[in-house]
This record gives sequence, C-alpha cells and structure tokens, in this order.
Amino acid sequence: MQFTAKDIALLLNGTIEGDPLAEVNHLAKIEEAGKGALSFLANNKYEQYLYTSNASVIIVNNGQKLSKQVYSTLIRVEDAYNAFSVLLEKYNTIKLNKTGIEEPSFIHPTVKNGKNLYIGAFAYLSQDVKIGDNCKIYPGCYVGDNVTLGNNVTLFPGVKIYFDCFIGSNVVIHSGAIIGSDGFGFAPNKNGSYTKIAQIGNVIVEDDVEIGSNTTIDRATMGSTVIGKGVKIDNLVQIAHNVEIGTNTVIAGQAGISGSTKIGERVVIGGQVGFAGHLAIADGSQFGAQTGINRSVKIPDKQWGGSPYQAYKDYLRSHVNIRRLPELEKRVTELEQIITGLREKNAGSA
Amino acid sequence: MQFTAKDIALLLNGTIEGDPLAEVNHLAKIEEAGKGALSFLANNKYEQYLYTSNASVIIVNNGQKLSKQVYSTLIRVEDAYNAFSVLLEKYNTIKLNKTGIEEPSFIHPTVKNGKNLYIGAFAYLSQDVKIGDNCKIYPGCYVGDNVTLGNNVTLFPGVKIYFDCFIGSNVVIHSGAIIGSDGFGFAPNKNGSYTKIAQIGNVIVEDDVEIGSNTTIDRATMGSTVIGKGVKIDNLVQIAHNVEIGTNTVIAGQAGISGSTKIGERVVIGGQVGFAGHLAIADGSQFGAQTGINRSVKIPDKQWGGSPYQAYKDYLRSHVNIRRLPELEKRVTELEQIITGLREKNAGSA
Amino acid sequence: MQFTAKDIALLLNGTIEGDPLAEVNHLAKIEEAGKGALSFLANNKYEQYLYTSNASVIIVNNGQKLSKQVYSTLIRVEDAYNAFSVLLEKYNTIKLNKTGIEEPSFIHPTVKNGKNLYIGAFAYLSQDVKIGDNCKIYPGCYVGDNVTLGNNVTLFPGVKIYFDCFIGSNVVIHSGAIIGSDGFGFAPNKNGSYTKIAQIGNVIVEDDVEIGSNTTIDRATMGSTVIGKGVKIDNLVQIAHNVEIGTNTVIAGQAGISGSTKIGERVVIGGQVGFAGHLAIADGSQFGAQTGINRSVKIPDKQWGGSPYQAYKDYLRSHVNIRRLPELEKRVTELEQIITGLREKNAGSA
Repeated sequence: MQFTAKDIALLLNGTIEGDPLAEVNHLAKIEEAGKGALSFLANNKYEQYLYTSNASVIIVNNGQKLSKQVYSTLIRVEDAYNAFSVLLEKYNTIKLNKTGIEEPSFIHPTVKNGKNLYIGAFAYLSQDVKIGDNCKIYPGCYVGDNVTLGNNVTLFPGVKIYFDCFIGSNVVIHSGAIIGSDGFGFAPNKNGSYTKIAQIGNVIVEDDVEIGSNTTIDRATMGSTVIGKGVKIDNLVQIAHNVEIGTNTVIAGQAGISGSTKIGERVVIGGQVGFAGHLAIADGSQFGAQTGINRSVKIPDKQWGGSPYQAYKDYLRSHVNIRRLPELEKRVTELEQIITGLREKNAGSA
Repeated sequence: MQFTAKDIALLLNGTIEGDPLAEVNHLAKIEEAGKGALSFLANNKYEQYLYTSNASVIIVNNGQKLSKQVYSTLIRVEDAYNAFSVLLEKYNTIKLNKTGIEEPSFIHPTVKNGKNLYIGAFAYLSQDVKIGDNCKIYPGCYVGDNVTLGNNVTLFPGVKIYFDCFIGSNVVIHSGAIIGSDGFGFAPNKNGSYTKIAQIGNVIVEDDVEIGSNTTIDRATMGSTVIGKGVKIDNLVQIAHNVEIGTNTVIAGQAGISGSTKIGERVVIGGQVGFAGHLAIADGSQFGAQTGINRSVKIPDKQWGGSPYQAYKDYLRSHVNIRRLPELEKRVTELEQIITGLREKNAGSA
Repeated sequence: MQFTAKDIALLLNGTIEGDPLAEVNHLAKIEEAGKGALSFLANNKYEQYLYTSNASVIIVNNGQKLSKQVYSTLIRVEDAYNAFSVLLEKYNTIKLNKTGIEEPSFIHPTVKNGKNLYIGAFAYLSQDVKIGDNCKIYPGCYVGDNVTLGNNVTLFPGVKIYFDCFIGSNVVIHSGAIIGSDGFGFAPNKNGSYTKIAQIGNVIVEDDVEIGSNTTIDRATMGSTVIGKGVKIDNLVQIAHNVEIGTNTVIAGQAGISGSTKIGERVVIGGQVGFAGHLAIADGSQFGAQTGINRSVKIPDKQWGGSPYQAYKDYLRSHVNIRRLPELEKRVTELEQIITGLREKNAGSA
C-alpha cells in the first residue's frame, strides 16, 4: 500500500505543509519512524521528535507551533490523535479484509449464512447455526449447534463456542477463547465424591463486545451468563456460570469472576483481580490489580484495592503502616523500659 | 422435545397434583419460568414463587406444604433437587448425543477404536491411539501418539493431548485444555542461558475426572503427573510437571500448582490459589481464594488463607489488626506524651 | 527402542562396570526403576537406591564410591546428570521425529517452505508465510499472513500466530499458545463506551525461546512486542502489547506483564506475579510467587516479594510483624494500665 500526503490529507480533511507528493507505505511512532513512514504528534512532550524525525509525513494538530525547521511533510488536522486512530483502523480493515469460504471447512446443511462472509479452512459450523452479514470466522473455529452470530462478528483462529450461545453484532473474539463451556457445578456425595450438575443454560454476548485470547466464559447452569453491551475483556480472563456483566465494563488480563456474581456498568477491573461468587458490584467501581473481592460493593464509583479489598486509599495506607511496624514496636519497647524505670523510682521514693 | 407431566412423573417415580397432560419443552428456574417450562422447588426460601410462577410443571418435595393456591401442575418426589438434577442430566445427554465419524478427520491406521464413538471433523488421532467405548471426540481435538482413552470420555472441541498420556473412563475435558505439554524444566548454564531438560514422562488422568477449559497439565520429567480419581478442575488452572493430586480434590479457576507438589485427597482449592513446588498438602485441606502456599501443610482438614498462608481465622484476624494499626499508633503516641509529662513532673518533684 | 550398556557407554564416552550386554528400553528415576530401565545417580543423597535399584543400567559419576554390592551394570562418566540429560534429549528427539506433510492441510501457494519439515493435518499456513528448515508444525496450528519462522521451530498442536509476527530459530511453542493477538487498547468516549485502538504492530520472538501452553502474547499497538533471545515462558502467562523482555529471562506459570513494561535480562519471575504497565525492571531482578509490581525496579540483581512489592527480606519480616500484632497490642494495653496506675498514685501523692 502506497499513499501520498495528498491522499491522506483528503481522507482526514487536513491541510498540507510541505510536499503533497511525499509517499508513505506504513505507520510508525514518531520516535522510530523512517523514510516512507506516516506518523503523528499529539502530545507536546514529544515535540522534539518533530524536528529530528525521518518520517515522510507527520500528522499534527491545527494549533501545533513550530520552533525549528521540520523536514517531514506535515498534515494539520483538528485532532491528530483521533485522525491517526482513524488511519490505524483503516489500515487494519485492509489487512483483515478476507472473504470467501475456504476448503476444507465443515458447514452443516442447516446453517443459515449471511452475506459477505469469510469462513476459513478447518472451521466448523454445526447444526442450526445462524450467521449474520460480514462475519469473519477464521481457520479452526468451532461454532456449536444452534449458535447465533450477529453481523460483523470476527472469530479469530481457534475460537470455540458451545451449543445454544448467542453472540451479538460487532463482536470480536480472539484466538483460543472458549464461550459456553460447562459451569463448575458439582454436588458433594456422602462418600466424598461429586456428582456433576448438568449445565444447560447458555452465554449471551451482547453487541460491541471484545473478548481476549484464551479467555473462558462458562454457560449458565440454567438461564444465561451475560456479557453486556460494549464490555471489553482482555486475555486469560475466567468468567464463571451465571455471571452478569454490565454495559461498558472493562476487565484486564487474568482476572476471574466466580459464579453468579453481578458486575455493574462502567466497572474497571485490573489484572489478576478475583471476585468471589454471588456478589453484586456497584456501577463504576474500580479495582486495582490483584484485588480480592470477598463481599458485595454497594457504593458506586469508588476505588478499591487489597485482598480482602479496602478503599484504595486505606489499602495504600495499610501498607505504609505495615512498613512502620518495626518502628512502632521499638517505641513500645522504649516505653516499657521507661515505665520500668519510673516504677522502680516510684517504688524507691515510696 | 415435548413431554407431559405424566411422562416426567413416570420417569421420576413421582405423584401428580394437577393436569397430567400439562406439556413442557424446556427447563427453567422457578423465578424465571414461563409457559412450557419445567421447574423445581427444593428450598423453602423460594416458596413464594410456587404461587406466582408461570411454569407449566413444578417438581416439589413430598412434604411440601401449600399455603395458597398453585396454578402449575405439581409433581411430588422424595428429593426435588436430586430429581431435577436427574432431568438436567437427561436433557444434556440428549443434547450431546452425537455419534459417527465426520469427514475430514485424521485417524491413523493403527488407531484402535471402541464402539459407539463420535469423532468430529478435523479431529486428529495419531499412531497407536487406543479409544474405549462411547467416547466423544469433538472437532479440532488432537490425540497424540500412543495415548489411551478409557470408556465414556468426552473431549470437547480443541482439546490437545500429547503423546503417551493415559486418560481413564468417564473423563470430561473441556475445550482448549492441554494435557501433557512439557514441564517447565531448564538447567542454567554459566553464561546465563538455559538448557532444556527433556520431559519424557506423561500425564495420567484417572476415572471420573473433569477438566475445565484452557486448563494446562504438564507431563512429568520422568514418571507421571497424576490427576486422581474423581478430581474436578475448573478453567485456566495450571498443573506443573510431576504434580500428584489425590482422589476427589476440587480446584477452582486460575489456581496453579508448581512442580512435584503432592496434593492430598478431598482438598478444596479456591480460585487463583498458588502452590510452590515440592510441597505435600494434607488430606481435606481447604484454601480460600488467592491463598499462597509456600510450605507443606501437615495437619489435615483445616482451613487456610492469606499469602503466605495462615490458619484461616488468623488470616481474617490479621486483616482486622492491620486495619486497627492507625488507632494502635495513636495509643502509643498518647502514652509517649503522658510519659513525657510524668517524667517532667517526676523530675520537678525530685 | 532397545540398547545395550555398551551402546550407551559408547555414546556417553563412559566406562562400563558389569555386564556390557545388559539391555535397556526406557528411562526411569533410580527409585522407581525396574528391569530394562536406564537410570542415573548424581546426588549422593540417593546413594541408598544404588544398592537396591532394579535398573538394568545406572549412570554414575567417575568418582562415585560404592559401600555395598551393586546389582545393576554401571556406566561411569564425568558428569552423570549431564550425561543423563543428553540421553533424555536424544530420546525426545527420536519420539518427536515426525516429517512430511499430512493431508488435509492448508498451504497457501505463496508460502516459502524450508527443508525437512513436518506439517500436520489441519495446519494452516497463510499468504506469504516463510518457514525455515527442520520446522515441525503440528496439527491444527495457524500461521497468519506474512509470518516468518526461523529454522528448527516447533509449533505444538493448536498454536495460533497472527499476521506479520516474526519467530526466530530454535523456538518451541506449546499447544494453545497465542502469538500476536490484539493488544488491549481502547479509547474512552464521553458516553462511557470505548473505541478500539487498532493494533497494527507485531510480536518478535527471538532465537532459543520456549513458550508454554495457552500462554498469550499480544502484538504491539505500533512497533513490536519483543521476547528476547533465550527467554523461557511457562504456561498461561499473559504478555501485553509493547512489552519487551530481555535475554534469558524466565517467567513461571500464570504471571502477567501489562502493556509497555520493559523487563531486563536474566530476570526470574515466579508464578502468578503481576506487573503494572509502563515499568522498567532492572537486570537480574528476582520476584517471588504472587508478587505485585506497581513501580519500576531500578536496582539490579535483588530479590523482591509481596504486593505491592518490597525487598524480599522486608516482605518476610512484615509477615512476622503482622503475626506479632496481637501481642504488640497486648503490650500497649498493659502499658496503658500501668500508666493509669502511676498517674493515680502520682495524683494521690501530689
């Protein structure tokens, strides 16, 4: 792909300063950019690179002031960061523009396919699967009986979706993620063994969700495990049966949510956080990395940390206090010595 | 699937109150049940729903008393919860009743197959694999050289089993689980690099085990990593080389067990728990979520928590104590002020 | 495979004591070895087994002294442990000596293949993939557009590598590992939703790296996520976008590294450790299991523990101090009582 500064300016509705015929063929960070690179400057902290960069073209804000000579061609736009994001997105769309059905794949005769699909080799679409338009199902994916995919769904290589699950539109699921495996439910027997409780519910993934690689989301025992609209889930996250996650909640890598816990909307969950089961978590809660949540959070929009969790400030203060413990112990020992002295004196003066 | 109350009563050996011809076609929780649903009431806490539910049929205990009119048809049985579990299981068996060999699959000519199998498309059965009766090997599974599967084994889509591993009967392995990958063994060299120690052992999974999705179980360096009879393992659990896990132990999501640790029988391991290597853990031990176990546990049947772990009660008390630290510090400061006062006074009175 | 003591001695340049025609057909630990087993003794702690073992052949150090009669044939070598490692490695090479291209597989016409390859059934090699010599690509692997693999690379079953990634030589990637999935990057919108930031960088895995099963390594937003030469990564590890890991660093199971963090060389990272984003970690740092790293580590070659992390010794001492808190509180209470007594006395004597 080869573009001129003029092409890019047209696309972004920007103004050119320099050579409109300067050619670019890839995107790069301003500090690493070489000839042929298209880059951007949004944060003035990096202004120095503007004067030293070898990028062929740099996108800047309309108001960007120049204190030295710039050798790259500039394109001025209203918001350089947003403009560059648009380009990244375009670039990715071109990169990931596969269509058609590759062989060998397994498509059950009852499958209902939408338009403009990509179905990779070794993909498996089972009985009564329904697929919307513009979906991309990469090689080695498995879509079980009676699963529904909305429009514009991407399943990267090796995603597995068990029977009866429902995936909304504009959903992206990364490689190796498992949707709809059995919840972890076993009834104890008197002899110490366990009997499996069949898990007959499903998983509902609403629109605009992204799910990271090798993340696991279990089906409900009965009813549905629900991933709300706009939720973003990172890699290696575990979501147990009957969990419900509210709109626009974000979950970082390796976090885990135990069975039947309800997470509110706009919650931000750090890496390696763990939730016990059957909790309710208020909207807008924020959990630092490695937080352990063992009881429900009722006050919305607060920050929490530690295991078991506390208000984030208290958590930080606790650690300062713990570090000061040796000093505190020393103070108590000194007091004891003084007291012993005083008592002896008092005894002497009595 | 459509059944009448009479069909269900016959199956469960129950007594009908109401319309024996009431029809059901799905299972649902009593509080969410609508027309056509079969539900149950086992816990009197939910009795209210008995009078308001739209379920067509509800299974109740023989002794269930009614304080208001019930509109659903009732089936009385000795144990409503168990009876419903039986139905869930039946339902699941019908749902998951695939048989036959789909194409394209890869079955090495040396494979010894049992009766009544399901082998999905894109499944790979390597040289000298032995498979018992009634196994289901879903699409995209890989069964390496010389692996043995017992009877009634289910490998959900995308399970990978490396060479020489042994899987017992009635084992269920969920999607993306990896059995028999190399243990993490490297010998340090003088120049800071590492030389791999070949891992030539295997994994033995005994009867009645269930393994969750994307869980990883490494083969032994020599000898076997052993998952004992009846063990239940949740999703994203890591089990290192030469670990041995005793009968009926239960391991929740994202827990990790380091190399050569021996876990006893009936142990209960919470989510995100971590064990160091080369430990021995007594039978019946119970570990709260996120516990860190850095030394062996010798006393059986006790509860533990915290990282590094303590008796669970002490762990809880520690956190109360930590929270009371600011107050303790204040008390010490007050004592210091009083003492200073007393000493000045004493000095004055001397 | 059947070998005589003479064959083994020749291979290891060792000296035989006993029957040169003693036959072995497998490797085993000295304490578990039976007839036909080849074993070794490197650590004198296990000397007792030398006299009781049923191994047909045992490899020992040249200097090994014997205090009783030995029934096994001995092979004396300079370093018994190393010699045995060599045999393990040979054994594994024979076990894993597959070659050829199995059908059905998907190899795009543009793929450039090296010599002496194994490409398993259901493997997928996409457009412009380049593969070096002696690579083994097991069944169900996915190698995306424009990916390069060096020489002697092994991808175990079900590895997925997204487009544009670069894998060096002598790299081993275990089943289910995902290389190059999108980094977790989303820009918040005013209405609470998020817009995805396209991730157009790649992952570079340098030579001599081993990556564990179901580990995930995300591609950079721009530029590269870099796994340095000789790095060893265990199972279920999460490595976020734009992370860089220095030469010969070792990462145990379920650890996680957040975006843009730079890990130095020779760092040792325990199980379930978590790093925040945008940190720099000094060479030779060592982190105990479950450590939480929330700020950069500037001093090299030190041990750390706890969450948030402290010097390892301080971390251990903290926990002792926390356990002593109830006693400290008791001492303060006693002081308060004494002081009250003293003040009353002083008041009385005033």
